[in-house]
Amino acid sequence: MQRYIIQDDQINNDIITIIGNDVHHIKNVMRMRIGDEVICVINNKINIYLCEIMAITNNIILKIKKIEKHYSEINCNVTIAQGIIRKEKTEEVIRRLTELGCKKYIPIKMKRSNVKFYEEKKERWDTIIKEASEQSTRTSLMIISSVLSIDKLIEQSKEYDLKLLAHVDRKGEKLKNILSNKSFKNVLVVIGPEGGFDDTEIELLLKNDFRCVSFGNRVLRTETAPMYIMSVLGYEIGEKNED
Amino acid sequence: MQRYIIQDDQINNDIITIIGNDVHHIKNVMRMRIGDEVICVINNKINIYLCEIMAITNNIILKIKKIEKHYSEINCNVTIAQGIIRKEKTEEVIRRLTELGCKKYIPIKMKRSNVKFYEEKKERWDTIIKEASEQSTRTSLMIISSVLSIDKLIEQSKEYDLKLLAHVDRKGEKLKNILSNKSFKNVLVVIGPEGGFDDTEIELLLKNDFRCVSFGNRVLRTETAPMYIMSVLGYEIGEKNED
Repeated sequence: MQRYIIQDDQINNDIITIIGNDVHHIKNVMRMRIGDEVICVINNKINIYLCEIMAITNNIILKIKKIEKHYSEINCNVTIAQGIIRKEKTEEVIRRLTELGCKKYIPIKMKRSNVKFYEEKKERWDTIIKEASEQSTRTSLMIISSVLSIDKLIEQSKEYDLKLLAHVDRKGEKLKNILSNKSFKNVLVVIGPEGGFDDTEIELLLKNDFRCVSFGNRVLRTETAPMYIMSVLGYEIGEKNED
Repeated sequence: MQRYIIQDDQINNDIITIIGNDVHHIKNVMRMRIGDEVICVINNKINIYLCEIMAITNNIILKIKKIEKHYSEINCNVTIAQGIIRKEKTEEVIRRLTELGCKKYIPIKMKRSNVKFYEEKKERWDTIIKEASEQSTRTSLMIISSVLSIDKLIEQSKEYDLKLLAHVDRKGEKLKNILSNKSFKNVLVVIGPEGGFDDTEIELLLKNDFRCVSFGNRVLRTETAPMYIMSVLGYEIGEKNED
């Protein structure tokens, strides 16, 4: 059934008011009618609302028929920080990371990022995240941070209990030794841009308790690396409703 | 250093002859000159050859200066079989699976695949695989099978010691219970097309010893699922040179 992620204030007792782009989607893309059913989810809540369409005007009025719980988040908050990469690649990375359960994406200004991050694309990124969340039945929206410098990232990294630095060099620690049979609350993974890290950046990160890991014996493209680590973290750390 | 995957018969004592598209790549893309160095790899062998360019004509003549061993394959042969998906998505899946260490990709004619597989694109897919292998430093080329029916896939599935069926329904077995602390030689994973499996296809696969697994609590797009499972398998099964 079609899902829509809404904000807390769109719900009022057993009535939900759909506003903005979702109105267009229900009316013109899905061509729904009064009596049709949709699922609504409030960002960052585990309740999901099975609703029936009551009225279609400039907004859409839904009546809640049933409330269920839905666990769709992995058992750990994962932040992926990445040297700024090209616009189309950013789009793909954002879409896949959303599907795979990432909580936050931080574009980093690195020495070898020779493209700029399009802050004006923020709205487009957010639309991708909302769509990908609805499609993958996630109940929380990934956050995209503004561009940070490495220094600023290091400042913010204090709140993480595992900080990884993905290096193509094989001399990193084995990811499995770091992850298996452990539990983490907040994981931060830093990935280089297309051109890789500059040596001074690596040194700075290592000095600040980032652990250098290998993502296997193959050199992954910068846009593949986030999907790899997010898949592995989801697999190894597991889902929120388990145990 | 730039890598080229070559065939066995291009090597003759300490001389390697570069032919075909790689000549254009060395001459016109990389603009290399006599005396420049490249690495050559023979498909499916672990030796890598550090070479120097001796002559540039219609072909390129290299002299081998050093031979090393390079392990770039995961410790298990993984085949991903997938309901036929759209052309652009196939391209992306092939590229990522190559980087992540997949051995074989089989497009499957399924009831809900409503696109055709472009066999005439085979040359294009093979170019992508060669490029992605060279970039990711793999020493073996992923194979793309012709389109198979589910029945034919089941016939071929006898040679695998683990056969998985990725279902979006959460009632599948937990992937971790299947994989952890086990070893497998040949793993086959079947993934549905955009429209998912038809119920009769699932029944047929289950009857033939495929095990239904969940890829986590989020519904992955059909093009994300292969990258997810390939990442997890690489992580869990490990690399060929280990231990």
